[in-house]
Amino acid sequence: MTYCVGISLEQGMLFASDSRTNAGVDQVSKYSKMRVFEVPGDRVIVIINSGNLSMTQNTLNVLQQTINHPRPDGRHLLNITSMFDAATLVGEAMREVQSREAPFLAGIDASANYIVGGQIRGEAPRLFMVYSQGNSIESSLETCFFQIGETKYGKPIIDRVVNRQTTLVDAAKCILISFDATMRSNISVGLPIDMLVYETDSFQVKVKHKIDEDNNYYLKVHHQWSQGLRELFHQLPNPDWV
Amino acid sequence: MTYCVGISLEQGMLFASDSRTNAGVDQVSKYSKMRVFEVPGDRVIVIINSGNLSMTQNTLNVLQQTINHPRPDGRHLLNITSMFDAATLVGEAMREVQSREAPFLAGIDASANYIVGGQIRGEAPRLFMVYSQGNSIESSLETCFFQIGETKYGKPIIDRVVNRQTTLVDAAKCILISFDATMRSNISVGLPIDMLVYETDSFQVKVKHKIDEDNNYYLKVHHQWSQGLRELFHQLPNPDWV
Repeated sequence: MTYCVGISLEQGMLFASDSRTNAGVDQVSKYSKMRVFEVPGDRVIVIINSGNLSMTQNTLNVLQQTINHPRPDGRHLLNITSMFDAATLVGEAMREVQSREAPFLAGIDASANYIVGGQIRGEAPRLFMVYSQGNSIESSLETCFFQIGETKYGKPIIDRVVNRQTTLVDAAKCILISFDATMRSNISVGLPIDMLVYETDSFQVKVKHKIDEDNNYYLKVHHQWSQGLRELFHQLPNPDWV
Repeated sequence: MTYCVGISLEQGMLFASDSRTNAGVDQVSKYSKMRVFEVPGDRVIVIINSGNLSMTQNTLNVLQQTINHPRPDGRHLLNITSMFDAATLVGEAMREVQSREAPFLAGIDASANYIVGGQIRGEAPRLFMVYSQGNSIESSLETCFFQIGETKYGKPIIDRVVNRQTTLVDAAKCILISFDATMRSNISVGLPIDMLVYETDSFQVKVKHKIDEDNNYYLKVHHQWSQGLRELFHQLPNPDWV
């Protein structure tokens, strides 16, 4: 499994993905699930994904090949003029891979999901989720984040803390806690976490950070949050009816 | 959907279930998902369930009818001598209902899950989970709780707080927080919460409490936890790399 989050804030955007993939419990590996297409000064497009590794790798390969060897229609991630087109290209690339592979994958879950976000000059930053069928939805002022993969364990803390006005610093903290909760309750999600921070109208990646088990900041947050939760729990009043 | 938890502690057992059922968003109702079979001084058997409402109601009706009108083999929930048999009876009743109904329910998800726990004189308290196929597993010293339904949102806090030595009071608090997180992130789980507390070797229900939106204790815990989490979050150090 996988856990990925993309958040769109006034200050900018934040993307995070874990690195664990597994095909059964005896085939567990590490793969980065984050790919960045960047032309400094012009565009930053970030794609994070969950699902069948062969599907997601093939889809990204098709997207990359289309840049190197453009198709008849000429469109690719580095020349389109809107993030909406980026989401569409991701969906189309996945459909192409699916239609080629699906007949040979009977009984195998070949689904995959993508979060596609960033900014292309001429537009505001935009964030999309691309479903396994290739269609997409866009984030909004009210719903400013998407999750894919093992989404539930880590959703409550994001629901509580994040809205469009949240700072990038707070969002980074919150996502780390969200991953911490997920990894504690589900072994199919694991370190390292790739985290990318994009500042609105900067047209370049601000931070790309890999957080592994030796990361001092992660360890500090992990322990302080865990201990703080316990203390908070014990400060709650007791039910008088037990 | 539904959220139910059963915990087996040294001090006793705790069961909790929400009351929301839905068949599509325009058919949302309240049903208690907790049934108690009690013979004070002899046995307390608690069944909480998730899944297809028709399946779970029918299964409980079969179990009840078998008490009123015993079958040829004579076994029912009030005369068996082990909680293991209780879990088996629940599984058998469900299989009976499924084999009768399934042919007419093509395309409908008729699955259901049960947590079956309690104590029968002559045994220690025991806790089982009965799967939709009718087979069951029992809790252990290491794994002292079961969840069914929308289990993921509320799992991290239980993972952090609960073990076999946890007190019934702390477990009740923890379950309330677990439900609070779940209801905040998933509208298919809703108040009121039925909570039942059983004390080891008491052979009678200690507390059966219904927690609705006017419950002062729930409101206090809800607000204090929410505010405490926010404060705890803001006390965490900021990442210096953002």
